[in-house]
Amino acid sequence: MIKVGIVGGTGYTGVELLRLLARHPQVELKAITSRKEAGMPVAEMFPNLRGCVKLAFSTPEEAGLESCDVVFFATPNGVAMQQTRALLDAGVKVIDLAADFRIKDIAVWEHWYKMEHACPDLVAEAVYGLPEINRAAIKGARLIANPGCYPTAVQLGFLPLLESGAVDVGFLVADAKSGVSGAGRKAEIPTLFAEAADNFKAYGVGGHRHWPEIKQGLESFAGKPVGFTFVPHLLPLIRGIHATLYARVSADIDLQELFEKRYAGEAFVDVLPAGSHPETRSVRGANMCRIAVHRPPGSDSVVVLSVIDNLVKGAAGQAVQNMNIMFGLPEDTALDAVGMLP
Amino acid sequence: MIKVGIVGGTGYTGVELLRLLARHPQVELKAITSRKEAGMPVAEMFPNLRGCVKLAFSTPEEAGLESCDVVFFATPNGVAMQQTRALLDAGVKVIDLAADFRIKDIAVWEHWYKMEHACPDLVAEAVYGLPEINRAAIKGARLIANPGCYPTAVQLGFLPLLESGAVDVGFLVADAKSGVSGAGRKAEIPTLFAEAADNFKAYGVGGHRHWPEIKQGLESFAGKPVGFTFVPHLLPLIRGIHATLYARVSADIDLQELFEKRYAGEAFVDVLPAGSHPETRSVRGANMCRIAVHRPPGSDSVVVLSVIDNLVKGAAGQAVQNMNIMFGLPEDTALDAVGMLP
Amino acid sequence: MIKVGIVGGTGYTGVELLRLLARHPQVELKAITSRKEAGMPVAEMFPNLRGCVKLAFSTPEEAGLESCDVVFFATPNGVAMQQTRALLDAGVKVIDLAADFRIKDIAVWEHWYKMEHACPDLVAEAVYGLPEINRAAIKGARLIANPGCYPTAVQLGFLPLLESGAVDVGFLVADAKSGVSGAGRKAEIPTLFAEAADNFKAYGVGGHRHWPEIKQGLESFAGKPVGFTFVPHLLPLIRGIHATLYARVSADIDLQELFEKRYAGEAFVDVLPAGSHPETRSVRGANMCRIAVHRPPGSDSVVVLSVIDNLVKGAAGQAVQNMNIMFGLPEDTALDAVGMLP
Amino acid sequence: MIKVGIVGGTGYTGVELLRLLARHPQVELKAITSRKEAGMPVAEMFPNLRGCVKLAFSTPEEAGLESCDVVFFATPNGVAMQQTRALLDAGVKVIDLAADFRIKDIAVWEHWYKMEHACPDLVAEAVYGLPEINRAAIKGARLIANPGCYPTAVQLGFLPLLESGAVDVGFLVADAKSGVSGAGRKAEIPTLFAEAADNFKAYGVGGHRHWPEIKQGLESFAGKPVGFTFVPHLLPLIRGIHATLYARVSADIDLQELFEKRYAGEAFVDVLPAGSHPETRSVRGANMCRIAVHRPPGSDSVVVLSVIDNLVKGAAGQAVQNMNIMFGLPEDTALDAVGMLP
Repeated sequence: MIKVGIVGGTGYTGVELLRLLARHPQVELKAITSRKEAGMPVAEMFPNLRGCVKLAFSTPEEAGLESCDVVFFATPNGVAMQQTRALLDAGVKVIDLAADFRIKDIAVWEHWYKMEHACPDLVAEAVYGLPEINRAAIKGARLIANPGCYPTAVQLGFLPLLESGAVDVGFLVADAKSGVSGAGRKAEIPTLFAEAADNFKAYGVGGHRHWPEIKQGLESFAGKPVGFTFVPHLLPLIRGIHATLYARVSADIDLQELFEKRYAGEAFVDVLPAGSHPETRSVRGANMCRIAVHRPPGSDSVVVLSVIDNLVKGAAGQAVQNMNIMFGLPEDTALDAVGMLP
Repeated sequence: MIKVGIVGGTGYTGVELLRLLARHPQVELKAITSRKEAGMPVAEMFPNLRGCVKLAFSTPEEAGLESCDVVFFATPNGVAMQQTRALLDAGVKVIDLAADFRIKDIAVWEHWYKMEHACPDLVAEAVYGLPEINRAAIKGARLIANPGCYPTAVQLGFLPLLESGAVDVGFLVADAKSGVSGAGRKAEIPTLFAEAADNFKAYGVGGHRHWPEIKQGLESFAGKPVGFTFVPHLLPLIRGIHATLYARVSADIDLQELFEKRYAGEAFVDVLPAGSHPETRSVRGANMCRIAVHRPPGSDSVVVLSVIDNLVKGAAGQAVQNMNIMFGLPEDTALDAVGMLP
Repeated sequence: MIKVGIVGGTGYTGVELLRLLARHPQVELKAITSRKEAGMPVAEMFPNLRGCVKLAFSTPEEAGLESCDVVFFATPNGVAMQQTRALLDAGVKVIDLAADFRIKDIAVWEHWYKMEHACPDLVAEAVYGLPEINRAAIKGARLIANPGCYPTAVQLGFLPLLESGAVDVGFLVADAKSGVSGAGRKAEIPTLFAEAADNFKAYGVGGHRHWPEIKQGLESFAGKPVGFTFVPHLLPLIRGIHATLYARVSADIDLQELFEKRYAGEAFVDVLPAGSHPETRSVRGANMCRIAVHRPPGSDSVVVLSVIDNLVKGAAGQAVQNMNIMFGLPEDTALDAVGMLP
Repeated sequence: MIKVGIVGGTGYTGVELLRLLARHPQVELKAITSRKEAGMPVAEMFPNLRGCVKLAFSTPEEAGLESCDVVFFATPNGVAMQQTRALLDAGVKVIDLAADFRIKDIAVWEHWYKMEHACPDLVAEAVYGLPEINRAAIKGARLIANPGCYPTAVQLGFLPLLESGAVDVGFLVADAKSGVSGAGRKAEIPTLFAEAADNFKAYGVGGHRHWPEIKQGLESFAGKPVGFTFVPHLLPLIRGIHATLYARVSADIDLQELFEKRYAGEAFVDVLPAGSHPETRSVRGANMCRIAVHRPPGSDSVVVLSVIDNLVKGAAGQAVQNMNIMFGLPEDTALDAVGMLP
């Protein structure tokens, strides 16, 4: 049994990790920390876990994280980088669901996250946990930077186009839409029901933290700089990201075949038949990215549609997938749930 | 392996059965019928099933239902009663998710369902599939009448009160609210998004088919006639039933203790601590009924709050629970999913 | 022109007052206060008001409220009672949309609102602003206690039954459901979109502040003590209250006729034809209460269905209605908008 | 008083026309036709109209449309073109809210709408009813082609960029999202609540009827052919369109100033301050298009955000605006409602 600790379990990625790990046959949940809620049974805060998770929140001091095999950080940005070195030194593997280790260029990271980085050397060591690109490195890693939700959907959608050189990299557009759970479980007015329901808007057009993360990935796929525009929007639904990607085709390639071949061996990327439109609900609760590729008539554009559940393939599910790889388990252990439709 | 057939798989209870059975370790899906969609892969209609269910819809003639071990009817009312006798004669067990076998009084059934019953003798044989009441009979049954969604939530909420004689049975009220999936996957204007979203209303106050089904149950619990008022409402959400039950207390009993004792051994009924308010989302996708009991101040009333997912404990999940009991499997096989929150 | 001031304009009742008053032909908006947002144009916070309301928020000191003809308090409970006397002394009429003046029994008020009342004598003077009961008194009043949202829907629904003695007052039940805007524009976790969407629950079964307010009204209609149970629920929609009311009929009266006669002259109460089910969306944005009355079969119960928009007839619209009466204007001035459907 | 007839009043644009016209001080509603519902009071189908609209549906034969001053067609495509000539001959002005007269190239129209056009000469005469472009022509017109909902939002967003030559017209992208009411009040499975709620998807990427309509407009603004990609999506909300527009900047122009100047005199186009993100709810129920223009960092792209209520500025409101212009009334008569927020 893998002994698992979770730091920061009161948010949506925390409860989603618990939902998945509670049914993982090789996992023993050892501790889940929250300084503020220490002592409260987890199932009191999240009643869906009644009867499934018996742990109470504990303080970090009491949690005994050093004796775990792996620790997940489901914390705000800037927390994991303070605690990771000690855990690694104690022989514990670390999977950070926040952004502390995602961006290799420390100056860029510090610009976007408005703080000094505590351990640039560990950023260099960390493996970006997108298994469809880095599976081998993940297998041998001590420290995983679990990708952001938008970056997962956008990068998986652009990957075959950029690897193959099929498009003009000078003008790539990602029009992305996320459900409200992506904003986290924080008491803030803009994500109140009466503000976000029956409403739709873009946000962060002037700059969003996922832009440099995605750009770093796209440039590594393309092997050169790219021009990349990213516009996120807030959807009036709980779970789900839909990325609509635009580029100009520069080579005469069968794009459907390109995508099917690239993802042929991937259990968690599903290329839909030509002409399809993936729906976010088809992946609700499932660790899956569904993708369709289109060539609209009367234009040289290619349009890629990519959907994930932001809390699963965009966060907790991908983290468990990384854990499975790191510990040599079948990659889909505890990740084979069918999407909940309707 | 249990060979399973499903008749009528294009509705919401059909796809929910498939979602649950696709991960059932003792089940082999043999056939799913739809005359209209024969030949279409099931996963084309329900893309959440891509990669999980490989069956295509077949006509009833081709389906070979007689060679199944059990057949589920996820059909409109009036279909199962036409086909059940032949299946039983062929040694197949039958679980009807519609209403054909739920009401013992044939005249009452014919009044509410506006058709002549095809096999009154089988109604007499059928076991009402509410395991918390009829577990032993279910174990030995050939034919199960799977309860309606409202009836499951309302009966489980009233059961301890009526069995114990704690309330005045002359005036029982169930104010029940259901998500829109309860209306089925039928093209009708009142359940369009633009009609049902951001809206709330009661319906069927003048008479609803679940009223006689619930009344039959309540009178059997009480052992005498009851006065029962049932008002269903349409909630702007997909899955979930919340029943708020009202009665006047007539005996001095510790109601919290009464409920906890009655459901102590039940895996799928969860009595919440005193003072709780169950949320529908705590059982979203889960085969669970969560119940709280209250004594509001300044009144002799008792208020019971009872929530289920109408498609799971209110339909497909309860049907699988019944199958597990009938075939001697652990009752929670394939039914241990954690509710999806958020 | 009536010079109007609003105290506390950053909440939902505040913006709704502005929406209605911006198109009121006899109103001149003089000031809207918010200490925290002083200086910010109102239309910056509420972009629907761009081009319609040119005011900026001001501090209470700068607002010049004493020179207004009427001041609305759209503040948390406990604010209006501190400022009302000075305004009345300056000859300003006051309409309080909060609860400071709603409950005549000061001890009851202090028990439920957990503070000492600042001006019990003004409570005695204040007129409860439900025009369908108190129109004449409102006309001559200086100080109006605008009713709560639930109390408006519930009292209008019970009123004819209690005035006429048609029901057993020993057991009255109000099962009430409210949209999330009823909780106000406050940053709190339970009303986040990801918590309240696709979800339904009861709350406050053990005691809600609207219970004593409604009870006070019901007892005055009935002329004697009543047994009253009130269970509020949170609906996943923005605007709308649906109250489902239950009682036992004790007299042989034509209830449809009773309701139609009682509300025959009322512009803002609409009794639907027999057999109807009012929908919350039919009053979305409109100052209207729609009511239907039913006698379900096989029972001695009467069921009343009553819907309002909690922000209009349940708050800001009723406040403007009261203002119109106080200033001798046609009662429907600026209140004739058609409900927005779909 | 302007005598008004409406053909086809049972859909969402029909009820929205009624909502607006019921409060229009210069309009007398003479007839609303529906062969299927003839005889039913309109307010029975749409209860928000109770007390405001007393008409019943009538058959086209009984409606006396020839004696109206103006007739609105709120019908499926292909109906208006059959009846328009007779009305024009009788001296009646016609405003078609469907697509019969929107596309000047008959071959293109017949290709996309799959039918033969009944009156190509009237297409030539018809004025495309986008007042911000064609106000003078609308003033003198007998026949108005009221623009589609997506075309209104997209064209108003691109208009200043194309008129000014500020962008590369070879690659224009409109990523558009619409609420479900845009699909009309038709009983179809994909727009059921349980299908469309808590879900998001693109549709019609391979070709949508609004693509040629928009392209026709963009090319007339630019004065040359354009490369144009259009991807519509279905939003889980009732009313609202959000168009996110992408182009590459080819000239060094102050875009904020460009937009503000272009729309300076327009009552129904609101250019937001630099850095803004318009929300669909800010125009809910209002005849308004709100627009923001952005230059995202690190790219040569311009992003325009454009929102409307699809049933108001995208349909019925714009139709009333056109009527007001045609009859010499103030353009905002009956169109000054404030958007409903929250």
